[in-house]
Amino acid sequence: MKRSASEIGEKSNRFLNSTIMRKPGMPLILLLVGVSCILASDSVQTNSSEKEDKFPLTLSRGWGDDLYWIQTYEEALYRSKTTNKPLMIIHHLEDCPHSQALKKVFSENNEIQKLAEQFVMINFIYETPDKHLYPDGQYVPRILFVDPSLTVRADITGRYSNRLYAYEPSDINLLISNMKKALKMLKPEL
Amino acid sequence: MKRSASEIGEKSNRFLNSTIMRKPGMPLILLLVGVSCILASDSVQTNSSEKEDKFPLTLSRGWGDDLYWIQTYEEALYRSKTTNKPLMIIHHLEDCPHSQALKKVFSENNEIQKLAEQFVMINFIYETPDKHLYPDGQYVPRILFVDPSLTVRADITGRYSNRLYAYEPSDINLLISNMKKALKMLKPEL
Repeated sequence: MKRSASEIGEKSNRFLNSTIMRKPGMPLILLLVGVSCILASDSVQTNSSEKEDKFPLTLSRGWGDDLYWIQTYEEALYRSKTTNKPLMIIHHLEDCPHSQALKKVFSENNEIQKLAEQFVMINFIYETPDKHLYPDGQYVPRILFVDPSLTVRADITGRYSNRLYAYEPSDINLLISNMKKALKMLKPEL
Repeated sequence: MKRSASEIGEKSNRFLNSTIMRKPGMPLILLLVGVSCILASDSVQTNSSEKEDKFPLTLSRGWGDDLYWIQTYEEALYRSKTTNKPLMIIHHLEDCPHSQALKKVFSENNEIQKLAEQFVMINFIYETPDKHLYPDGQYVPRILFVDPSLTVRADITGRYSNRLYAYEPSDINLLISNMKKALKMLKPEL
């Protein structure tokens, strides 16, 4: 039986469990308008002119060259589980100005870089087949946390009601606070 | 329903179809003894001392810094299909001397590096869940080709009957010839 690559995305409600979305009454519901990019998961994202600028390609892709970045989702899940560190997943695109702006702040913020050492870190410029990693759509930038119990922390959200996992550069303190929240592990259910 | 990361490997007879193994009577059947490493897919492969040597981590990992390397298997399949280039997958380990020896020859050989531009290239230090990528075991170094029709070219093998997809540095001409074979696409079945 042959399966095409395009089926992959449909075939993979697996690996992870989202927690039930917990949204405590937020004081201010914001709509994110035009500050995130739609992830063009079906377009080839690099051309030959980009190619010349960026060699050799790094796993950090500029989000922190001193951090240890994982290549594959499977390895990231495995490391999170075995090291008992939460997993932080950054979806971004090289040609998305909002991703680039967030990356600049993220990579230059000492507190974030220090906190990130306590996580298993991975960044993707391509969607994984795991639909739990796009609970409200495939936009970028989009940051999700996964507990070492391999549960997506869907409760850890940013400020925007229509793009729950998007962050702007001005949200950096909220991101720091969310990283701290992710470090407080989920308690096993009774 | 929760699924643990350890189940991932068992759950994935998907994505690809191996072709039926074609082994034309080989003039000399060789046994590969002690020249490949068992891929310790369940061990953490990097420690902090390695960490200091290798930053920033690159996607090429030394197999050719001027080539364009893909991060994820899903993207590699997608690019192979849409660009009609065959996919070349190198499994290796940083602490495997046989992988390192092959990498040195591979990265320094101009003909290989030039040929590699005609492929979608990916290298893994961690196994994917796709069992079609380990038709005869999870050893390294191990090189597999995938046709743009997303069929594993299980017929393109090295010299060793017990590790069909292993190559030693001295097999570099066979690897070149296998790359040329992979560039001749499979004909659709009649």
